[in-house]
Amino acid sequence: MEYIEKIGAAAKAAAPILADCGTLTKNRALSEIARRLNQNADAIIAANKLDIENARKKGMSETLIDRLVLDEKRIAGMVDGLDKVIALPDPIGEIMGGSELPNGLRVVQTRVPMGVIGMIYENRPNVTVDAAALCFKAGSAVILRGGSNAVNSNKFLVDLMRKTIADLGVPADCIQLVEETSRETAVAMMKLNKYIDLLIPRGGGQLIRTVIENATVPVIQTGEGNCHVYVDESADLDMAVNIVNNAKTQRPSVCNAIESILVHESVSAAFFKKLDELWQGKVAVVGDERTAENIKVEKIADDTDYATEFLDYKLSSKVVKSLDEAIEHINKFGTGHSECIVTGSLENARKFQRRIDAAAVYVNASTRFTDGFEFGLGAEIGISTQKLHARGPMGLNALTSYKYLIDGNGQIRG
Amino acid sequence: MEYIEKIGAAAKAAAPILADCGTLTKNRALSEIARRLNQNADAIIAANKLDIENARKKGMSETLIDRLVLDEKRIAGMVDGLDKVIALPDPIGEIMGGSELPNGLRVVQTRVPMGVIGMIYENRPNVTVDAAALCFKAGSAVILRGGSNAVNSNKFLVDLMRKTIADLGVPADCIQLVEETSRETAVAMMKLNKYIDLLIPRGGGQLIRTVIENATVPVIQTGEGNCHVYVDESADLDMAVNIVNNAKTQRPSVCNAIESILVHESVSAAFFKKLDELWQGKVAVVGDERTAENIKVEKIADDTDYATEFLDYKLSSKVVKSLDEAIEHINKFGTGHSECIVTGSLENARKFQRRIDAAAVYVNASTRFTDGFEFGLGAEIGISTQKLHARGPMGLNALTSYKYLIDGNGQIRG
Repeated sequence: MEYIEKIGAAAKAAAPILADCGTLTKNRALSEIARRLNQNADAIIAANKLDIENARKKGMSETLIDRLVLDEKRIAGMVDGLDKVIALPDPIGEIMGGSELPNGLRVVQTRVPMGVIGMIYENRPNVTVDAAALCFKAGSAVILRGGSNAVNSNKFLVDLMRKTIADLGVPADCIQLVEETSRETAVAMMKLNKYIDLLIPRGGGQLIRTVIENATVPVIQTGEGNCHVYVDESADLDMAVNIVNNAKTQRPSVCNAIESILVHESVSAAFFKKLDELWQGKVAVVGDERTAENIKVEKIADDTDYATEFLDYKLSSKVVKSLDEAIEHINKFGTGHSECIVTGSLENARKFQRRIDAAAVYVNASTRFTDGFEFGLGAEIGISTQKLHARGPMGLNALTSYKYLIDGNGQIRG
Repeated sequence: MEYIEKIGAAAKAAAPILADCGTLTKNRALSEIARRLNQNADAIIAANKLDIENARKKGMSETLIDRLVLDEKRIAGMVDGLDKVIALPDPIGEIMGGSELPNGLRVVQTRVPMGVIGMIYENRPNVTVDAAALCFKAGSAVILRGGSNAVNSNKFLVDLMRKTIADLGVPADCIQLVEETSRETAVAMMKLNKYIDLLIPRGGGQLIRTVIENATVPVIQTGEGNCHVYVDESADLDMAVNIVNNAKTQRPSVCNAIESILVHESVSAAFFKKLDELWQGKVAVVGDERTAENIKVEKIADDTDYATEFLDYKLSSKVVKSLDEAIEHINKFGTGHSECIVTGSLENARKFQRRIDAAAVYVNASTRFTDGFEFGLGAEIGISTQKLHARGPMGLNALTSYKYLIDGNGQIRG
């Protein structure tokens, strides 16, 4: 597809120049972007209004429209995000290792930019600035393909960023927006091996699966979270209820919220009594027969329910006979995101952490902490649920690669 | 495809048990495999004879048959490889980082096995043991799909390894062979997302491209090497000839051999004179008009020639006006493997190393050193030419992932 090819070629041409920019230039550009975002707040909100009006005309739900909105608070949030990215140490140029070989060759493993990063995401226009800033600081050109409903907001934000970096002598094509938001442009990005070094999809399960299915470029799978809390035989039940409540209801729409609970049979009666007292029907439950003996369920859960990411005030539940059964269930239905055991047993805690195949495995804490800021990465571009390259919250390092620099004085191989 | 599904499910079931095996058990199993390989050398050679006879009947060239052969020397090579893998430190369980958060949560990033690794390779049966040993030491189950012509050798070797590990209490299904070597089994592996965490193709460009094109599982692209030596204006020309000669002729069939030379115009006459004196036609040259003024060329090179991995006593050549032209040419035609500048200029050396987008960038040394053993990784499963996860020679760490273990005492997110 010529349109995407052209964007890709421009990104590839711009990337080496950004790779050679020092930290100072990159930070100055980000700082100037922050200043201009503040300065242009009214114009940003005006551009965003067009998107919101169009969305209302299309009959989009208010919940979805809320994601689209850029108001003063969200602009301040973007500026705050930029300040945090500026404050992060520059990963580029880090010496990761190396040695002098017996023949005198010096081999130095050095962190370098990824090159060109593609982002495919949905309708949150603040992702446009967050993602561009992280890729920029990591020294890579970025191709942003946001959702069609946010296109006016995204155009304004990307124009602002492009002008700013160009004013500071960095090629504008280090930050590009795919303005044609057809399915074709997304698929073309997924197959742009000539120009894209890494593609990160951010959004719902359907988007992620489409990318996995179609991409020939390297991809990092992010954000699907069918997360569980397992309440062990030896759990402090007040702690268990508190963690389940936090992990389910503090922000149900995010990927590190839980979707399912597993409860050891020996504590199920007491646990569900406490949970029911707290929730009083606030969270809908689908569960197995034994859950239904203890708490009101909407329906008896089947495998589809156990595999569902509700992202709402709803969860699935199962009473289990043993830790092993819980581990087996989680490894079968989980998406490798965040899993938790509430237990008083050191042995069970360690077994759970060893055997559960997920990015973040918790003992006695809410899964809601799986987050780049919480983990001290300073920022995040997404949460990887795959095992290749990066797992869990991805900070700046996850957006880099490395190369080996070898210095010799005429060595040949014998 | 049911046949591959079944193999995948068995690998996935076996993997957690291997992940929990200690270093001692893994090393004992590898050591016992080495002992039994030696003990069964005659039987291995007999099984291999069947493959060779079949290949001869099919009219396979002697060069290709040579890759198939297992003789006493190659068996000794496999045993030596096993000893090297045993000697490597176990990567699993390494604490890669972590911190205690202000709320008291302890976050520990821990190295864990990849899970299930698929290998698709061609007709070298020694790869069967090398790859199985590396995956095993790295704690992952492996699914091996070798070439159809090596199937008798591979069956014998895999049976021997399976029996050995089972005798030591490790599930045999940690090492499995895909005995049906149809195109369908390969494609089914490429799409086995449910069970395969990482797929590594090892072989020629056609195999690699087929995998990239078809795979939905995470892949590491390996081994294509269109490598260059650039002879700079300030090069020591004797050193340049020596490096070009080594990088081209010491072993022309491997991926870190060079396929192309770029020569600065100011030294081209003198350089080609020396090269011609050394080679006297031993290496065929395809080159641009200006190369042809200095040395006999088979034909004037076009873009297809510059993109070709000859893997033979043949190379492409171009006279360039500047370092920048050389860098541009390499970044256009290179495969991101190994690139070299011969120069006396510190400035040019640094510029070349910064700007060239490849796994290994050499100053004044032969590209033939790009190798896991040479780089001190102790072993290698292949040489990655992509930027995601691993770049350049891949040792044990490249076969691992990590997870975050988080310990709390009831923390919830506010």
